[in-house]
Amino acid sequence: MSVQRPAPEWSVSRWFNSAPLSLAALRGRPVFLHAFQMLCPGCVQHAVPQSLKVAQAFVQSDLVVIGLHTVFEHHHVMTPDALQVYLHENRIAYPIGVDAYRDDDPSSHPLPLTMQAYAMQGTPTLCLIDRRGMLRRQQFGLVDDLHLGAEIGTLLAESASRA
Amino acid sequence: MSVQRPAPEWSVSRWFNSAPLSLAALRGRPVFLHAFQMLCPGCVQHAVPQSLKVAQAFVQSDLVVIGLHTVFEHHHVMTPDALQVYLHENRIAYPIGVDAYRDDDPSSHPLPLTMQAYAMQGTPTLCLIDRRGMLRRQQFGLVDDLHLGAEIGTLLAESASRA
Amino acid sequence: MSVQRPAPEWSVSRWFNSAPLSLAALRGRPVFLHAFQMLCPGCVQHAVPQSLKVAQAFVQSDLVVIGLHTVFEHHHVMTPDALQVYLHENRIAYPIGVDAYRDDDPSSHPLPLTMQAYAMQGTPTLCLIDRRGMLRRQQFGLVDDLHLGAEIGTLLAESASRA
Amino acid sequence: MSVQRPAPEWSVSRWFNSAPLSLAALRGRPVFLHAFQMLCPGCVQHAVPQSLKVAQAFVQSDLVVIGLHTVFEHHHVMTPDALQVYLHENRIAYPIGVDAYRDDDPSSHPLPLTMQAYAMQGTPTLCLIDRRGMLRRQQFGLVDDLHLGAEIGTLLAESASRA
Repeated sequence: MSVQRPAPEWSVSRWFNSAPLSLAALRGRPVFLHAFQMLCPGCVQHAVPQSLKVAQAFVQSDLVVIGLHTVFEHHHVMTPDALQVYLHENRIAYPIGVDAYRDDDPSSHPLPLTMQAYAMQGTPTLCLIDRRGMLRRQQFGLVDDLHLGAEIGTLLAESASRA
Repeated sequence: MSVQRPAPEWSVSRWFNSAPLSLAALRGRPVFLHAFQMLCPGCVQHAVPQSLKVAQAFVQSDLVVIGLHTVFEHHHVMTPDALQVYLHENRIAYPIGVDAYRDDDPSSHPLPLTMQAYAMQGTPTLCLIDRRGMLRRQQFGLVDDLHLGAEIGTLLAESASRA
Repeated sequence: MSVQRPAPEWSVSRWFNSAPLSLAALRGRPVFLHAFQMLCPGCVQHAVPQSLKVAQAFVQSDLVVIGLHTVFEHHHVMTPDALQVYLHENRIAYPIGVDAYRDDDPSSHPLPLTMQAYAMQGTPTLCLIDRRGMLRRQQFGLVDDLHLGAEIGTLLAESASRA
Repeated sequence: MSVQRPAPEWSVSRWFNSAPLSLAALRGRPVFLHAFQMLCPGCVQHAVPQSLKVAQAFVQSDLVVIGLHTVFEHHHVMTPDALQVYLHENRIAYPIGVDAYRDDDPSSHPLPLTMQAYAMQGTPTLCLIDRRGMLRRQQFGLVDDLHLGAEIGTLLAESASRA
């Protein structure tokens, strides 16, 4: 889905691999955000490996790569402790946020706050946010490397002022 | 590694998708056993999908497909509860055993009992056991489909008496 | 298609990488025969690479790997000279026969003689022939490595007398 | 290899799928040029399928996709007639030029004229030319989809004036 609206700020209860990061503070840089769950097969087999590849391919650009652990089921086993092991085993070094629930209570709503704010349909979901903070693409499911590369190349080519 | 020795009996503390199963009771049928950990990337991305493919490809033969959850690290998050979610999410329907520790105590030894008995070096490990209960192949790491198919075809072609 | 009938003798007008070979002379050994055309995309991208892989995987067995160039269209460019370059560029070292036309005349029939004898539907076509000369499998299109490996393993496991 | 110099005009003896096209006439549009030989395995198995994918992925952009048949060996079988069959069988519908030799004589030089002008090292070779006619990338061998997509996205994002 190609979109064009301000990307909502994210709500994160805990960060791994980073001090707390707000979307607002990243204004001026393009952001690749992938929402995943550590026990979702499509995430683990395709989306996370692709995100690792993106992080490596654009390491010399100013693209920001961020993972968001949007747990909306099986909370008792996809805990932050389990996530930490997952990140270690998969050698994921870019910032990972845990999508928050209101009052830190997963029974408060079927979905965590950032999933709600972005109206995500499930995991994996890919979001591309441009230098001005506009949400340019949100995709539930898989995106092939060629199209993804082109969209990232476009965001990188835009200047912050012009964009 | 091509081997030829009696396959040790396995030690399982809990079964999923099956009543308790002993190797002895499977005598007469060839067995495909894959040892894995649910948070081991090579297992999740390659060995488990291959095992699912094997289970489907040989569904009309008398091959027995078994998974063994050989947790030797991060026990606090690779619990039976977490495994149950993993099996559900990945639609794994063949029997899965949890490799046991002596006295159910992971601090008793760095490795669980079946890993010790088979002298496995890590996960994933693939074991092929013939109709007579001989361990014909044990491989740490990945095996390509063509060789794996050939070895399974060989075991299936052997008669229980002759073998 | 799983079949069980005597494999017809092939008709070959020219051999590459080998002295003339008859199927009859190979009795006692299992035969992997792949029919292809050098300008058929499915052959070039999938079937020929798979055949090269089979030739390498079973090099220590007595499996015979044979390619058959079954040209039924565009004869003016898929000549033996062009085939020779194709074999050289793809480093194909196993025996390759050119499927013959009656009186060496491609206008004599829409299909060359071996294609007719086997009732092949097109290229690529895979044939597995057992030690007794029985055609055990004939498949138009692609076969995945796991199933193919299993069928080859089965043929290899059969003894010539028993089979 | 990342480069930045005016892309040389190409020398083409015959066009398929198009009236004659000069690079000069394409000024203002980005150009994806892939040099290939129809019997080069790396071309046939990777570069040409990738080029077909590029042509489809960017069909709604103003990217120009062009194939150049740079035959520098085995001229007697990689003829324009054979190429025509190859294009038909692989359903290649974008413009394809045949790299020319001086006086149409392949014995005049080991390489055809465009290969010489671009100093190509072999096939496949990928060239990306920007809207101003600058050669921004020339790569012998394979390029992965993610990087390729990003580079195409960058070229597309540039305006003709600014670029």
